[in-house]
Amino acid sequence: MADDLKPGERAAVLEVLAALVRAWARGDGAGFAAVFAEDADFINILGLHLRGRTPIAAQHDQIFSSIYRGSKAGFDLVQARRLGPDIIHAVIDCAVEVPAGPMAGRVETRASAVMVRTGGRWRIAAFHNTRLGEAPPH
Amino acid sequence: MADDLKPGERAAVLEVLAALVRAWARGDGAGFAAVFAEDADFINILGLHLRGRTPIAAQHDQIFSSIYRGSKAGFDLVQARRLGPDIIHAVIDCAVEVPAGPMAGRVETRASAVMVRTGGRWRIAAFHNTRLGEAPPH
Repeated sequence: MADDLKPGERAAVLEVLAALVRAWARGDGAGFAAVFAEDADFINILGLHLRGRTPIAAQHDQIFSSIYRGSKAGFDLVQARRLGPDIIHAVIDCAVEVPAGPMAGRVETRASAVMVRTGGRWRIAAFHNTRLGEAPPH
Repeated sequence: MADDLKPGERAAVLEVLAALVRAWARGDGAGFAAVFAEDADFINILGLHLRGRTPIAAQHDQIFSSIYRGSKAGFDLVQARRLGPDIIHAVIDCAVEVPAGPMAGRVETRASAVMVRTGGRWRIAAFHNTRLGEAPPH
């Protein structure tokens, strides 16, 4: 992993990702959103743009009780680097194992997150996700 | 547009987007990459992660001469907000009009960009793009 983070900073980033995994496994939208800043931006794999912790919680509650019911997510840190004293940019490989329904199987995505430290705590200020795909033949 | 940018900052963000549009119209990968920081991260609509201005230029030269040959892109600023004194997060609606080939038609995406000011100049430190899609029925 190419980064210039201090060990404590890397641990904080990993803990944020671990909190996302735990909340996802519980199907807990509010818990998922809790590691986001109050005014965070979230762009999902369909290009839907949400702004704020409350919409992020509500949208995740919706998918946790429908297309992603019973699923487990993994968030693996691929790269993290500092953009400023209290700002980190992270690249994250995500995989969701979905037991049933229209998304059944393994959904693989690549996300980026901008994490900002406020009051000593790192939170996600912006998150953007894209489903992995293949280039069209040409 | 919800933001807290100064007029000069908003103008700088818009000029970065205008430079992307002009370089795209010329099919100029190096020109496209010129508004990115030397070590920028770029994640495209297939989840491909590029790191650095040179790979960003090369990959765009490749698509400008193949699937996106002769296309025009638009980059419309939807939202911009400050994450730090010299860091702006922008949400951008993108549309590419492709005249022919496997991507022929209109390709609509939503991107986010983290722009960082260094030496008085704003450049893109991180860019992430997602094709607009529809949620599966459930």
